[in-house]
Amino acid sequence: MGNDRKSKRKGTKIKHPGLVQPRLVRGFRDLFETSLEQRNRMIRRIQEVYELYGFTPLETPALEPVDVLGKFLPDTDTPQEGIYALKDPDDDSWIAMRYDLTAPLARVFSMNRQVLGTPYRRYQIGPVYRYEKRLKPGRLREFYQVDFDTVGAGTMAADAEACSILADALEALGISRGDYRIRINNRKLLQGLLESLGLPETGGKTIMVNQKPVEQSLVVMRAMDKLDQLGIDGVVELLGKGRMDQSGDYTEGAGLDPVTINRLVGFLELGRDSDGPRCKMLTSLQEMLGQSPMAAEGIEEIREIDRILTATGFGHDRVVLDPTVVRGMSYYTGPVYEAELTFDIQDKKTGKPRRFGSVGGGGRYDGLVERFLGERIPATGASVGVDRLMAALEYSGAGARETTPGPVVVTVMEPSRLPDYALMASQLRSAGIRAEVYPSKGGIKKQMKYADRRRAPVAVIAGSDEFSRDEVTLKDLKMGRELSSKIQDREEWRKGQPAQVTVAREKLVQRVREMLQAWG
Amino acid sequence: MGNDRKSKRKGTKIKHPGLVQPRLVRGFRDLFETSLEQRNRMIRRIQEVYELYGFTPLETPALEPVDVLGKFLPDTDTPQEGIYALKDPDDDSWIAMRYDLTAPLARVFSMNRQVLGTPYRRYQIGPVYRYEKRLKPGRLREFYQVDFDTVGAGTMAADAEACSILADALEALGISRGDYRIRINNRKLLQGLLESLGLPETGGKTIMVNQKPVEQSLVVMRAMDKLDQLGIDGVVELLGKGRMDQSGDYTEGAGLDPVTINRLVGFLELGRDSDGPRCKMLTSLQEMLGQSPMAAEGIEEIREIDRILTATGFGHDRVVLDPTVVRGMSYYTGPVYEAELTFDIQDKKTGKPRRFGSVGGGGRYDGLVERFLGERIPATGASVGVDRLMAALEYSGAGARETTPGPVVVTVMEPSRLPDYALMASQLRSAGIRAEVYPSKGGIKKQMKYADRRRAPVAVIAGSDEFSRDEVTLKDLKMGRELSSKIQDREEWRKGQPAQVTVAREKLVQRVREMLQAWG
Repeated sequence: MGNDRKSKRKGTKIKHPGLVQPRLVRGFRDLFETSLEQRNRMIRRIQEVYELYGFTPLETPALEPVDVLGKFLPDTDTPQEGIYALKDPDDDSWIAMRYDLTAPLARVFSMNRQVLGTPYRRYQIGPVYRYEKRLKPGRLREFYQVDFDTVGAGTMAADAEACSILADALEALGISRGDYRIRINNRKLLQGLLESLGLPETGGKTIMVNQKPVEQSLVVMRAMDKLDQLGIDGVVELLGKGRMDQSGDYTEGAGLDPVTINRLVGFLELGRDSDGPRCKMLTSLQEMLGQSPMAAEGIEEIREIDRILTATGFGHDRVVLDPTVVRGMSYYTGPVYEAELTFDIQDKKTGKPRRFGSVGGGGRYDGLVERFLGERIPATGASVGVDRLMAALEYSGAGARETTPGPVVVTVMEPSRLPDYALMASQLRSAGIRAEVYPSKGGIKKQMKYADRRRAPVAVIAGSDEFSRDEVTLKDLKMGRELSSKIQDREEWRKGQPAQVTVAREKLVQRVREMLQAWG
Repeated sequence: MGNDRKSKRKGTKIKHPGLVQPRLVRGFRDLFETSLEQRNRMIRRIQEVYELYGFTPLETPALEPVDVLGKFLPDTDTPQEGIYALKDPDDDSWIAMRYDLTAPLARVFSMNRQVLGTPYRRYQIGPVYRYEKRLKPGRLREFYQVDFDTVGAGTMAADAEACSILADALEALGISRGDYRIRINNRKLLQGLLESLGLPETGGKTIMVNQKPVEQSLVVMRAMDKLDQLGIDGVVELLGKGRMDQSGDYTEGAGLDPVTINRLVGFLELGRDSDGPRCKMLTSLQEMLGQSPMAAEGIEEIREIDRILTATGFGHDRVVLDPTVVRGMSYYTGPVYEAELTFDIQDKKTGKPRRFGSVGGGGRYDGLVERFLGERIPATGASVGVDRLMAALEYSGAGARETTPGPVVVTVMEPSRLPDYALMASQLRSAGIRAEVYPSKGGIKKQMKYADRRRAPVAVIAGSDEFSRDEVTLKDLKMGRELSSKIQDREEWRKGQPAQVTVAREKLVQRVREMLQAWG
């Protein structure tokens, strides 16, 4: 109860000379009892869904060679930006903490291809590490991901499945249909559109941004990725000359002409109808982009995904098409999907309601293994961000906290009788009952306070009286807590002490079990 | 089955220009399906024991400020030796990957003392990172620990309990009584002996080792810690002038005189009787060390632990006293315990049998919180090294591998029918049956090979024939595997095809369920 909170980072000032200031690295946190149990319960439920779909587990190290991880993080221009890197003390080469679980999968597959074979379907659970330079409040630099991927996924069946899995996983966590949407897009749509506008993804025009040459198409894509954040008007500014934000910071624009900007805005505006039927969106896409061969290929892929989703009963109440979805990772090559929570939460900063937003997603990345083997191997998969989901469930109340009852606490009245108390706890445990001896020194008041903080259901008390009569006193703390919250007249309750009973020592286990059963 | 292996590190040479060599950082590994499931099963069983004893979970970050972790690793002389350290990109301060879970606990407690209160009893599961310079074969630099600790453990009850927990945890893993021992020692014994010999732990004589001044008592303790490795004779050399090993490397000695060495050898030789009754060892210790106040205090503490263990039925078949036990971490201040597997394994290098040795342990560390709060708070706890235990169980056969059956594989005969295949898998999953659609392109042979590698119990097959008759064919792969291993005449079996059946499409789920039930 009380001991469930996140450690707050304290300043780095040392209070007393010679003492070390206990503190966390910025962006990192501790997880205590209730939150941790809740997160692990969430992970288990997601894991069950992944296993039901046939995936098997994999675990990889926290550290990988930097070049193995590659540079696919969004918004990073230099190789070691965004990650925690260090020199391997063995040979002084650069190694780094993984920033996702996908790059390591490509490495694992490439090293063990013969044994694993294709298709290789694995899920992985674990923390990843991202050094976000300007850390926003509530953001973490270490967070858990729960991933599933199919390497050697030659058909769109794997992509359709990925969307079903995301939907099933969210529902397994108690999120109601209607409170989430899986949004599908295909990188090929925007790519095709940009190509047809003379803005190919590679080999196109280069413009100067902050005195550095950058592909114009990259600047365009980054601008379009800001839609959620800045709205259409902000994106239009970024596509044109540039944009000054409220703080006075200026972001240079992509320098496009108004006609081109108009075409791109038209594309973004398709997103407004994205909650409608998928077939309608497919028609709009066909009309707007069908003439680009690249975009047409993308539309065909989405159509295939749609057919499978429709056949398996995943309607647009769960999975929709949204051409404005952009996933940050640059390794995606085709369909991308995003899991979004659609209910509003109150923004902590502004106090206004806002959509909670993305809690996971993924996509197809046909080139990740190619970096290692020189051969294109199609792969697709997605990831659920458990820490963000946990925050979301706390907001929505869907993840009502289940608290585990604490252990039976055997109090220590006579320190010389420690072996006797230890035997009581041991006998309770042998009967499968969580139990502990109060492990320190202190009076009865301190010990009962401890038992209460632990949410102990029962406290066992044996002083010289009890020992002389071969008895033990059992205090039903759960009943005590219930009663004290109901009964107004505390004095009356104290006199009656309905929650306390003294029994023969040999009845200890039996009576404790009865007390626990009485309360379910 | 086949896909359960550890990735072997390949050379760092790049095969093709432009390609990245897929490789692991040295000392790190991947864990696949079967091994990973086995390890997680082990962790769950240990966790259940810890919870039964009343501990609650905690999770802390992988990275901590270097000064928060402190310098307690064995055999390291410089602050950043033995750990993976890097600069925090936020402020250029040194941070490092945790090398154990105890130092972070002291930090957590110090930051959250008011909320957590004392005693605080937590367990923690997670990987820790140690950079061992000369990496021995089979040793890992990232390995899992499963820890439990009591902060504010004012009595020896917590230490006695720690030994019981270690014993119960090993038995919960299927290790028979007799195949393990928990060995207790107390740092105060050796400390008291050294003091009485004019070798106090701090403030004593300093000698030159490798041209560096080192406390003589530290050199003595390191020498005595080599007992297992070098035997009495080797330790005697290290206590005296020094020792040349087989490779010709010379280790400088502690420079003690023969009389002092004799006293220390007498102490070490007590260890020979350590498997006997605890009361006998207590008598020997009292006789040899009783006159030293420090040692007498240590003996009294052990006596208290012994009383509790005896009362709760933990005899010397499970927990013994062994004055030669040394735990590496320098933060221990009183009782230390080591969990040892007593069965022999074949040494991979020499081919000779040797005792498997330590798989965990712990002790009392009353000073760790003091570093932060300036106040001595007694604490005690222990750790189980799951990765070493897993290796041990593989040797002993006690951890016979349980393999999870794979998913039902719905094969793809007609790619245009993907939505139909997806529906079959979806219906199976709705009935709680693990199922997947073959997620790529390929002929029936490739797909059946895949189903076999996945250990699929059943493959679903539907080609144009089946679709036209609204049927599906079910192949009982488990029966197929059983049969093909028994029946010699393959031709005969093929003709009969007893493991294959064609049923109405609507009977799919029902028949698959029957097939799975038939095989349990």
